[in-house]
Amino acid sequence: MKGSIYLIPVTLGGTEASAVIPDKVLEITRGLRFFIVEEIRSARRFLRLIDKQFPIDESWFRELNEHTKEEDISGYLEPVMQGNNIGLMSECGLPGIADPGARLISTAHRKRIKVIPLSGPSSILMALISSGLNGQQFTFNGYLPVKPEERVIRLRELEKRAREGYAQVFMETPYRNQKMFNDILKTCNRDMHLCIASDITLPTESIITKKLSEWQSDLPDLNKRLVVFVLQ
Amino acid sequence: MKGSIYLIPVTLGGTEASAVIPDKVLEITRGLRFFIVEEIRSARRFLRLIDKQFPIDESWFRELNEHTKEEDISGYLEPVMQGNNIGLMSECGLPGIADPGARLISTAHRKRIKVIPLSGPSSILMALISSGLNGQQFTFNGYLPVKPEERVIRLRELEKRAREGYAQVFMETPYRNQKMFNDILKTCNRDMHLCIASDITLPTESIITKKLSEWQSDLPDLNKRLVVFVLQ
Repeated sequence: MKGSIYLIPVTLGGTEASAVIPDKVLEITRGLRFFIVEEIRSARRFLRLIDKQFPIDESWFRELNEHTKEEDISGYLEPVMQGNNIGLMSECGLPGIADPGARLISTAHRKRIKVIPLSGPSSILMALISSGLNGQQFTFNGYLPVKPEERVIRLRELEKRAREGYAQVFMETPYRNQKMFNDILKTCNRDMHLCIASDITLPTESIITKKLSEWQSDLPDLNKRLVVFVLQ
Repeated sequence: MKGSIYLIPVTLGGTEASAVIPDKVLEITRGLRFFIVEEIRSARRFLRLIDKQFPIDESWFRELNEHTKEEDISGYLEPVMQGNNIGLMSECGLPGIADPGARLISTAHRKRIKVIPLSGPSSILMALISSGLNGQQFTFNGYLPVKPEERVIRLRELEKRAREGYAQVFMETPYRNQKMFNDILKTCNRDMHLCIASDITLPTESIITKKLSEWQSDLPDLNKRLVVFVLQ
């Protein structure tokens, strides 16, 4: 009989596991020995965090990231075909969102392997629900283009969709947050609302929604913080 | 000093709380005495579930749903302005998504009240990440129109957006799931992928992604099940 793929949540940065991950989910994770992860080093660190005795050296790890070749992914599922349960783990939060996890999961569906999602933190959804912007209809856009002219075009598109009623969620790498914030201010209309959700679940968490006209007179310091933007 | 608003997750149907809600989140919830909820009866049931001794009769409840008047919402925040922490709770999963919670939260932001999201299950996100469809860019559309001709137009729009690369997530009320499934089959092209995620986190959970051409020869029974659809 085939095994299953568990989608394993991890903490968002250095939060305590019991603050964001259910007990039973930690128990299931401790019972697994096969893992497909975004980065082996941090996956091991997480397993040690939730179980000091975790038998890391007896466990099987493969990396799934943007460098993973398409032909390797099918091989990653061999242990499952042989009856083992396997855990998919991301760098941050839930796997399969804002990461390359979907490539593995779609292969699993083609092979009729059972996929079991586990409950855990998603900075994207936690930002959205705390923003007070439209949680009934929204779009997650991932990362926007880095090139200035392409980014302006994208931001204008997002503003248009936001005015149609769909809250627009997007992200940026920590060292480019400040630039992104300035680009939003320069590009979008002053009456738009912007939620800046920083360091979700961490002691430095800050989630604030204001009009762009209000943000303008109160520039936040976003440098090196984990930020999710919601525009509407 | 003002209190804070905690966004409290609940189970998706009859799952055990420790399977989907973190320990610390249950602890925070047990400590609250002020609640704004979608339905008082089920909120009380949940509080009794996570704490048999919960002092329900000494707690303060207000209902926030589609019948709540705009002018009442500001009054709901009085206890917070007086220094109490308050919990916002939905019928199912995370509050503020696919429910009227955003109305309260946007008022809170205007009053500079701190909003603190807690980690818990979201059937929408769990369906998406398990679907193997695009978790890097997606749109949640809530409920589609009920009228046949409007629904067909919406489904065509969703198909167009899905082909542009954005996975399209939507829902239906349990007794209309079968009809929705038939409408998708009738309206969309056979080469589209459809994930049907039913009863997430329940013992009857089933999450399957296939092409519409494959679904056609294998009609599922979706009647009275909690279903999230993902199309791409």
